[in-house]
Amino acid sequence: MLIKQKYGMRIGDKHYESIWLDKDDDTAVNIIDQSKLPFKFEIVALRTVEDVFNAIRNMTLRGAPLIGAAAAYGMYLACLEITAYTKTREHLRNAAKYLMSARPTAVNLEWAVNRQMEQLSQYCRPDRLTKTSLKTALEIAREEKARCRKIGDTGLGIIKQLSKNKKDGTVNILTHCNAGWLACVDYGTATAPIYLAHDKGIKVHVWVDETRPRNQGARLTAWELENHGVPYTLITDNAGGYLMQKGEVDIVITGSDRTAMNGDTANKAGTYLKALAAKHNNIPFYVALPTSSIDTNIASGLNDIPLEKRDEKEVLYVEGMYNNEIVNARICPENTRAANYGFDITPAELITGLITEKGICRAREEDIRKLLSEKKD
Amino acid sequence: MLIKQKYGMRIGDKHYESIWLDKDDDTAVNIIDQSKLPFKFEIVALRTVEDVFNAIRNMTLRGAPLIGAAAAYGMYLACLEITAYTKTREHLRNAAKYLMSARPTAVNLEWAVNRQMEQLSQYCRPDRLTKTSLKTALEIAREEKARCRKIGDTGLGIIKQLSKNKKDGTVNILTHCNAGWLACVDYGTATAPIYLAHDKGIKVHVWVDETRPRNQGARLTAWELENHGVPYTLITDNAGGYLMQKGEVDIVITGSDRTAMNGDTANKAGTYLKALAAKHNNIPFYVALPTSSIDTNIASGLNDIPLEKRDEKEVLYVEGMYNNEIVNARICPENTRAANYGFDITPAELITGLITEKGICRAREEDIRKLLSEKKD
Repeated sequence: MLIKQKYGMRIGDKHYESIWLDKDDDTAVNIIDQSKLPFKFEIVALRTVEDVFNAIRNMTLRGAPLIGAAAAYGMYLACLEITAYTKTREHLRNAAKYLMSARPTAVNLEWAVNRQMEQLSQYCRPDRLTKTSLKTALEIAREEKARCRKIGDTGLGIIKQLSKNKKDGTVNILTHCNAGWLACVDYGTATAPIYLAHDKGIKVHVWVDETRPRNQGARLTAWELENHGVPYTLITDNAGGYLMQKGEVDIVITGSDRTAMNGDTANKAGTYLKALAAKHNNIPFYVALPTSSIDTNIASGLNDIPLEKRDEKEVLYVEGMYNNEIVNARICPENTRAANYGFDITPAELITGLITEKGICRAREEDIRKLLSEKKD
Repeated sequence: MLIKQKYGMRIGDKHYESIWLDKDDDTAVNIIDQSKLPFKFEIVALRTVEDVFNAIRNMTLRGAPLIGAAAAYGMYLACLEITAYTKTREHLRNAAKYLMSARPTAVNLEWAVNRQMEQLSQYCRPDRLTKTSLKTALEIAREEKARCRKIGDTGLGIIKQLSKNKKDGTVNILTHCNAGWLACVDYGTATAPIYLAHDKGIKVHVWVDETRPRNQGARLTAWELENHGVPYTLITDNAGGYLMQKGEVDIVITGSDRTAMNGDTANKAGTYLKALAAKHNNIPFYVALPTSSIDTNIASGLNDIPLEKRDEKEVLYVEGMYNNEIVNARICPENTRAANYGFDITPAELITGLITEKGICRAREEDIRKLLSEKKD
C-alpha cells in the first residue's frame, strides 16, 4: 500500500516519507527496504518488535533519526503484543533492551526507546499503553521531520552565501554516506539544506562519495538525488581529496551518528579523512544533525563513543546489479580476511560548525551547552 | 610457458617476475594478465607495439616501473617490425610517441622510451637496432629489479627499528593500491621492505587498502601477500583513518607514480587522504620509489603533474567473482554519472621521507637534488 505523502521527497511522481503507519492496518508500520535500493523498490511491513529489531540490525532501515523513529514504533508494536497474562513492565523493559541492542552506535535508538518508556511508565492498561506509544511514535516521527526541515533552513543560509561568491552560482557540495531523507523521516540531515536550496532554485551540484563497504552513497544518496532531480556526480571515497585540492568542492556536509559534548563526531568511516582534507584546503566542513544525536553523557569522542565493528563479508564482497540480479561479488582472493570498521571520529577541531534544528553552532562544549539549553521548539 | 625465476616472488611453489622474454620464442614478451587477478592467473604474450600499448592502456599490466620495462620491450618489438622498406627513424619515432601516449601519469614510460631512443639513435641496421633494443630492455628490467631490492634494503632499516619498539614485535604497515612486485619487475617498491622484513623473520602485518575504483589493493596486493605468506588484512579505503586514530598503524608506505623536485608526489587517488591522517596522528608516512620516477622537469606537484581522468564505468561498476565468473556489477542507480579521478597529489610537507634505491631522503628539493647527484649505482 503506497501512501502519497503530502510533504515527503520525490520518487518519480510520488512523494514518500521513510516510515509510516499503514493507512488501512494500524498493526503494520511500513518502511522502504533500503537494503535493496537502488536496484529494487520494495515496501516492507513491520508487525513485531522482532521485525523492527531485524530491520535495524540488518540495515533494511538505517540512519540515526530513522532508527530512532523505528524504535519508537517498535515500542508501539511491543504494546500491541501485550496479552491478558503478560507481565507488562517486564515485557516492555525486555522489548526496550532488545531494541536498544540492535545497533550500538546510534544514540537516537536509546533516546527514542527511553522516551517511550518514560511515557509508558504512567500507564498500566494495555489500551492506554498502546494509545500512548502510538502517539509518542507519531510525535517522534513528526518531530524528526520538523527538525530536519529546520536543519535545512539553518544550512540553506550557508549555501545561499556560497552561491553568491561563485561565478556561475553553482555550489559544489561533497557528502559522505547517506544522511538523506531515507536516513531520516523526511528531508534528511546533510541533504536537507541541499534539497531546500535546490527547491528554491539555487544551483547546487553534489559530489557523492560511494561510501564503501556498503555503498550507501552510491546506492542511497545517488538514488535520492536522482529521484528528486538534484544534479550530482558519483565519486570513489578516494577522490574527494583531489577534488578539494583542485578547488572543485565549496563545502562538505555530512551527517552524524553521535556527537560528543566537545563536538567530536562519530560518523561513517571515511568522514574523518574528508574533514582532514577540507581543513587542509580551507574548505568549510559542516556536520548536520538533530540535537537529539548529541550525547550529553559523552565528553569527548575518540575513546568514549562506542563504535561498531561489522562483518568482514561487507568488505570482501560488493553488492551490485548484474544481469538484472542483485549479486554479491567477491573482490579479493578467496582466503583473504578483512576488518570492517564502520565508523570513525571526526575531532571537533576539524569541524567548521554543527548545523542543527536550533541553528548553527561551533563544535565546542561551551557553544553546544548553550545550544542545548535553549528552549525546545 | 611458465619460467621459474631464480629470484622472483612466490606464487604457490613457483617464483615469478612480472615481465620476461619467452624462453623459447624471442619475439614474445610474457606478462601476467593483472586485469584478471586474483580471480584467474593467466600469462599473456605481447608480440607487437600495439600489444604493449593495449596492455598498458587497458591495465593488463600496470605500475610505473613495470610500465617502464614494458615500454622498453615495446621498443624492442618495434625494432622487430622493421622491414626492408620501413622508414626506420620515422617508424621508431612513431612507435615511441604511440607508446608514450598509453598512460599519461607514469614518468617511467617516457623515461624508458627515451632511453631506448637514445641508444637506438646510434644505429641504422635493423639487426643492430634489434640487438641494442633487446639489450636495453633487459638492462632496464634488470636495473628495475636491482633498484627495488635496494629500496627494500633501505626501508628494511625503518621497519626493523619500529619492530624493536613494539611489545610483540609486530609492525603494522598500511599501504594503498599496489606498489608490489606485480607493479615492478620484482620485490615491488612499497612492498620491497615488507617482503625483505618478512623473509628475515621480522613480524609484519599489512593493512591493505582495497583502493577503489579498480581495487588494486584488494585484488593485487592481497594476492601478492597471500601468495608470499605475509600476514595482512583487507580494509576499505575509508577505514585507515580510524585505524590510525586507534594506534593500529605503525607506518604507512605507498608507492609513487611521479615525484616532483619539491617532493610532492602523485600516486593513486586516496594516498593524500592517508598522508593527512598519518600526519594528524604522528605516524610516519613514507613513499617508496625508484629515483627514475622523480621528474626533474617538474618543480611542484599540484599544478604541474598531469593526472589522468579515467572512464566513469570504473566507478559505476565493481568487478568481482560471482558463481565462478568475473562479473562487473553496477553499484548505483542506472542513470548515475560518475567522475573518475585516478590520482592525487600528496604534498611534500606530509611525507616523512622518500625510500629510494639510493637511500632515505627527505621530501624537499635540496635533499632530492643531492640524492640525484650521487653517483649512479
